[in-house]
This record gives sequence, structure tokens and C-alpha cells, in this order.
Amino acid sequence: MDLKQYIATIPDFPQEGILFRDITPLMADGKAFREATERFVAFAKEVDAEVIVGPESRGFIFGCPVATELGIGFIPVRKPGKLPRETVSFEYDLEYGSNELHVHKDGIKPGQKVLIIDDLLATGGTIEASVNLVRQLGGEVVGCAFLIELADLNGREKLKGIDVFTIMQY
Amino acid sequence: MDLKQYIATIPDFPQEGILFRDITPLMADGKAFREATERFVAFAKEVDAEVIVGPESRGFIFGCPVATELGIGFIPVRKPGKLPRETVSFEYDLEYGSNELHVHKDGIKPGQKVLIIDDLLATGGTIEASVNLVRQLGGEVVGCAFLIELADLNGREKLKGIDVFTIMQY
Repeated sequence: MDLKQYIATIPDFPQEGILFRDITPLMADGKAFREATERFVAFAKEVDAEVIVGPESRGFIFGCPVATELGIGFIPVRKPGKLPRETVSFEYDLEYGSNELHVHKDGIKPGQKVLIIDDLLATGGTIEASVNLVRQLGGEVVGCAFLIELADLNGREKLKGIDVFTIMQY
Repeated sequence: MDLKQYIATIPDFPQEGILFRDITPLMADGKAFREATERFVAFAKEVDAEVIVGPESRGFIFGCPVATELGIGFIPVRKPGKLPRETVSFEYDLEYGSNELHVHKDGIKPGQKVLIIDDLLATGGTIEASVNLVRQLGGEVVGCAFLIELADLNGREKLKGIDVFTIMQY
């Protein structure tokens, strides 16, 4: 099944010069959404993941189905002010301004094998933050998996030494 | 399995006087997360859902696993500026200010049987907006399903005539 045909490409969104890769047609097609999930699940088994971590909100789209399919936990990485209990956080720079992500302190147990899932690997800021959060809690990042990799943006360079899985590349 | 034991109750979050029901311990427990998903799936089969709709971001947490489990599509309801193609929208009042939600115009086909899933039914503003969006596109809302219902807030009154399923109540 060629999953790339379910991605819409939208020029100049959210701003001029950006080619936005829209995954909603893939999600709207039950067979395609299921097929993508199965490919993530196969990778999760390969790396022996014990828990899935995903950044809000699009990391939930594939991360939650993979967790429930395998019967393992899902730990959300969220923006400030969303998680009600004690968290660890990581701040990183964006082109304009900065971003801060949090995870609950009890979300990851030391030594736990963690697979981080998101929809898109672009410059890698979000995934680098997520890796940092998992490691702050003593978790072992056994893999990072994405539906789409924007290869020109070199996000993969931020993930040296980690097993990176991507379903499609642009 | 008593799923209520996996909900943490946090006083005074996000502001004083609010008892926040935190679902992250349930998501962190693979068996509990799977069990909750299976109960949503059973309801989706009962109402013969053809597509799942869920508002960001916590509607993705159960909505996406239910869609992939059944092999049916998932249509995200999102805040302004997130969906790149043509949308319909609905604005509703909050205690302070207002909120606007969008869905892609081609997300729902006329006559399609839609199950809307979210984590929490409180005053019902988000779910009422989601029902409105589905109906604007000619979809038939065959059910609304929630992990938690805060019964005192009467959100259910906004859903008259719709089959409402909740896994637990407070």
C-alpha cells in the first residue's frame, strides 16, 4: 500500500514558501490509517519498546493506537500548563522565540525502553526535546518513529545513536 | 477492571476551586488504556459508526485507537489555523472569551454515521461545537462517547436525542 498517495501537499501553509504535508487524508482513510499504525507497531516490536512517548497533539495520532495495540502505556509530552502533576521540562529555540515541553516526573521509570512517536520529523526540535525529557527521567530511548521525514531539514542529525524509523520521506 | 482507580484527582488545577481529573495514569497503564479503548470500540460497533471524529488534543487519545482498531477513518476537529484545507467552523462562548473549532469540509460525507469521542464531558461546549460541525457537513451523529462525565455540569443536556456513552462519572 503506497501511503504517500494519502498525503496532501499544500503550498504556502501556514506561511508563504512552506510546503505543508497534510496527513488528514491518510487519517480519514480507515485502511491507510490502520496500515500506517501497523508499520509503527512492527517497529515498536523490533526495538522491544516498553512504553510510547508522544508530543502533543499530533504525536497522539499514531502514538496512542500503537500503545493500545501493544497493550503498553502512553506518556504525553505537553506544552506548559497542561500536565497537573510534577513535571520535568526542556526549553528549546524556534526560528522566532522559544518553546517549552513537559512530561510528568512519574511518566518514565529508570531503565524503561521508550519509543517516541510523532507524525513529522522536520528540523527536529520537538523530538530532541522529547528525547531529553525521557533521558532526564532515566529512560532509554530505543527508537524514534515518524510518519514523514522532511529529509532536507536534517532533523535526523539531532538523533545520532538512536534507531530512527520513518514511513515516508520528502 | 475498575478504571476509576487509574484517574488522579488534582485539587485547584488549573485554577483554585477546580478538581481536575487527570487521565494520564490510565494512559500510562497499558492494560487500563487498552481496556478503556475496547469499551469505546464496543460502543462504536453498537451504534454502527462509520467514522470517528475527535476534538484536539485529548479527543485524539481515545478516538485514534478506536478508529485504527475498527479500520475506519478519524477526522480531527481543530483550533483555528491548524487545518490547511477548506473548513467549516463553529464559535462558542466560554466563561471568559470564546472558542472556535474547525473541521475540513471534505472530512465528513453526507449521511455518514459519525461517532464523536472525547476524554471528558463537562459543560459540553466542545462536544456541542463538534456535533454542529458534523451536522453542517450533513453527517449523522450516531453517538458521543467520553471516558469521564462530570455529571453536575449537565453537559448531557446539550446532547438531547444523541446516544451518549460514558465509561465513568463523577
